[in-house]
Amino acid sequence: MTVLNAPVDFSGYMTERAKRRQKSPLKSLIKYIFMPDMVSLGGGCSKSTSEDGVEEGDLLVLTREGQKESSVEPLDRLLQYGGGLGIKSMMDFFTQHMEQIHSPKYEGWSIVPSVGSTDALGKAIDLFANEGDPILVAEWTYPTAIETIHQIGLEFVTVQIDSEGMIPSSLDHVCTNWSGSSPLRLIYVIPTGQNPTGATMSLSRRTEFYKVCQKHDLIIIEDDPYYFLQFANIPVVDSVQETQQLFPQLPGIHNLVPSLLSLDTDGRVIRLDTFSKLLAPNLRYGWITAQFPLIEKIMFHNENSVQQPSGFTQGLSSKLLTECWGPSGFLEHVLFLQKEYLVRRNALVSSIQKHVGNMVSLTIPTSGMFVWLKINLSPSQLATPGIMDQIFESMVSHNVLLVPGCMFSPVSDNNLVKDEPYLRAAFSYTTLDQLEDSAIRLAAALSSFGLSK
Amino acid sequence: MTVLNAPVDFSGYMTERAKRRQKSPLKSLIKYIFMPDMVSLGGGCSKSTSEDGVEEGDLLVLTREGQKESSVEPLDRLLQYGGGLGIKSMMDFFTQHMEQIHSPKYEGWSIVPSVGSTDALGKAIDLFANEGDPILVAEWTYPTAIETIHQIGLEFVTVQIDSEGMIPSSLDHVCTNWSGSSPLRLIYVIPTGQNPTGATMSLSRRTEFYKVCQKHDLIIIEDDPYYFLQFANIPVVDSVQETQQLFPQLPGIHNLVPSLLSLDTDGRVIRLDTFSKLLAPNLRYGWITAQFPLIEKIMFHNENSVQQPSGFTQGLSSKLLTECWGPSGFLEHVLFLQKEYLVRRNALVSSIQKHVGNMVSLTIPTSGMFVWLKINLSPSQLATPGIMDQIFESMVSHNVLLVPGCMFSPVSDNNLVKDEPYLRAAFSYTTLDQLEDSAIRLAAALSSFGLSK
Repeated sequence: MTVLNAPVDFSGYMTERAKRRQKSPLKSLIKYIFMPDMVSLGGGCSKSTSEDGVEEGDLLVLTREGQKESSVEPLDRLLQYGGGLGIKSMMDFFTQHMEQIHSPKYEGWSIVPSVGSTDALGKAIDLFANEGDPILVAEWTYPTAIETIHQIGLEFVTVQIDSEGMIPSSLDHVCTNWSGSSPLRLIYVIPTGQNPTGATMSLSRRTEFYKVCQKHDLIIIEDDPYYFLQFANIPVVDSVQETQQLFPQLPGIHNLVPSLLSLDTDGRVIRLDTFSKLLAPNLRYGWITAQFPLIEKIMFHNENSVQQPSGFTQGLSSKLLTECWGPSGFLEHVLFLQKEYLVRRNALVSSIQKHVGNMVSLTIPTSGMFVWLKINLSPSQLATPGIMDQIFESMVSHNVLLVPGCMFSPVSDNNLVKDEPYLRAAFSYTTLDQLEDSAIRLAAALSSFGLSK
Repeated sequence: MTVLNAPVDFSGYMTERAKRRQKSPLKSLIKYIFMPDMVSLGGGCSKSTSEDGVEEGDLLVLTREGQKESSVEPLDRLLQYGGGLGIKSMMDFFTQHMEQIHSPKYEGWSIVPSVGSTDALGKAIDLFANEGDPILVAEWTYPTAIETIHQIGLEFVTVQIDSEGMIPSSLDHVCTNWSGSSPLRLIYVIPTGQNPTGATMSLSRRTEFYKVCQKHDLIIIEDDPYYFLQFANIPVVDSVQETQQLFPQLPGIHNLVPSLLSLDTDGRVIRLDTFSKLLAPNLRYGWITAQFPLIEKIMFHNENSVQQPSGFTQGLSSKLLTECWGPSGFLEHVLFLQKEYLVRRNALVSSIQKHVGNMVSLTIPTSGMFVWLKINLSPSQLATPGIMDQIFESMVSHNVLLVPGCMFSPVSDNNLVKDEPYLRAAFSYTTLDQLEDSAIRLAAALSSFGLSK
């Protein structure tokens, strides 16, 4: 049996805000409420609508107290106050899920639910960064993360990325040469199907990246919404039929690239998971995994902000995951998603190869929902101010919309990045026919710039 | 027709954080997505589980696209990303509701949903206060608000309260004599059924309070979860039957004390509403009403934190409020709650009057779910350090739990308040039998201190 290490103690790095996050004094009374024979006028619990029987039949079929055997909490419990954690059936699900999929390598990891990874990101940052402090991010990254970090007031420090994501030597270089007044402490990374580049870190890249983070004592915020949307090494083929024949090579849940959390022996990874790409974005339900002292602070932060995800959302998710699906149903659902997205990736990439050809360069994404295109502009075009505005207008006039690269830059002076020759294409939502159409239209939009296949 | 004023411009008071909250640049692309004939590879929307038909029948009866006429958004829409506002049917409901119930008195008020009033409080504070800034609060107030404000790092400045809530002359005195380095800008108030004192501000108290807030240019955070739990002037009577005969005097939704928002001509009130006491606490769904420039900043804050309440929660709430209930059903539900809480208030207060008598003093609450008891200790008992610990232990040994007053104090040095002779009794959740039992047990617990009825 493997003996696991205790995690590194990062409490000395915490913000004063984080240090103030403590158990509510009122919680010390809870033990009295549950004493036998105790009559409590202590709690401010309120009547919930479930108790006057309004929804039954009208709205919702979930479990009511004593109605039937179920691992899902009854409606009365789901709708009552519940602190910063959430319902037990889902906490058990998360624990088993993380053990099975990521098997963390240190003693004392823990989980807290979130209302989605954007809120989770803010809470992870709140642990360690004050306004004005720096954070390491990829040179192209997720706009909502950029906006969230910007609004909190951190300084972006960028790391170069390639087709495998953040480049460890670039990270090492940036950290080694850092001369800011606050130390580099936090790094934000999307390791799988990175938004917007689609890049997925290989295992060796992850290992090397983690070592550099250890060297510079960085705490890693691993934002991994696309983790299950992996396609392994399945090639791009032209037709849906050919793609379908490759389905048996899909990784399911067993042959996925290991997460950074699963390589983390120090407890320096704060991993953000979400149901957004797994069930539905507007569930507003995710979970955070890290060493307990950090998770506990986030739980206290939850108790003084969102409390916990909506009881309906938790109950419905629990019903789906623990009763309707179970482990085999979850695998089946992941495979369903992998098939859906693989078909779309192949449709888009093969259409681009066929119709757009050498007007762009791309790396075939092995995960996620994005293809990152570099437009092969001539040196003189690249030196033309406003060239990307022109290309955008050309796309609009050809009725095709891809997102210009500059939208993904954390650099605050837009003039420095607005003519970077990149476009992000998302293949998650458009129909298969539209995917091919979009490539044809993109080719037309670019050909007016003298580019050719 | 009344001409309404434009609100006062408070933008000069905003924090740098609030000023940074802006529309995401990516949102500028949305207009292109909706152009006719446009094929978009722009959005990062994902497949949602609703599209593979898993929940239908198993879990949830809501509306699916094209299924039938409904004002509630279809499931596909509910489960997709939707920005910082939320679904239209609920935004329409909130607007009509606020117009009907509060009828704001200035031009350009607006609404944004919240995931509950605790999160809303943090976001309202974030607009105007930095760490270290002061905030005015009642000398006894809601523990989760205390904890939230403490963790954010504000300094508490207390205002005295009586049986009608915050005392305007005390507020005026505190503001006039303020000598802190940052100006007093924010005041947090629970005007109806205050937690923990049960105090409800009368109309004249509200008017006077608002004038003092105007005088000192304070922005008012009106946290009003118990607004609909008003009992007007219905007296305490002994039996449930007698109470039932008084039900016709309940205010319903038409004879409620006006909110501070409804008196606000300047746009200086940020009103927090929630479904927690109206439908169920763990819905995690509320709404914030204030002048548009403040609401817009909170919407941007939502977009970079919680996004919006869970789609399930919004959809189920919309189904309930706009389809199942409608206006008459809402009134009926409010009356149901007022009846439930009135019966409980009368049961508890009459039991205390009968069994505890002059051992305590209390003001009969005209709203909410709390009774605030002052224990009539002798001067020498009041001068005994640890007296309230002894009373707490006596309560526990008599199997009755009320919350000691010190738990509701924002004063950080617990020694200064721990022997204040107050107890909060909540009558929201205990059964009627238990309410009488609790009074009998409390009497026994207190009688061992030489107190008598």
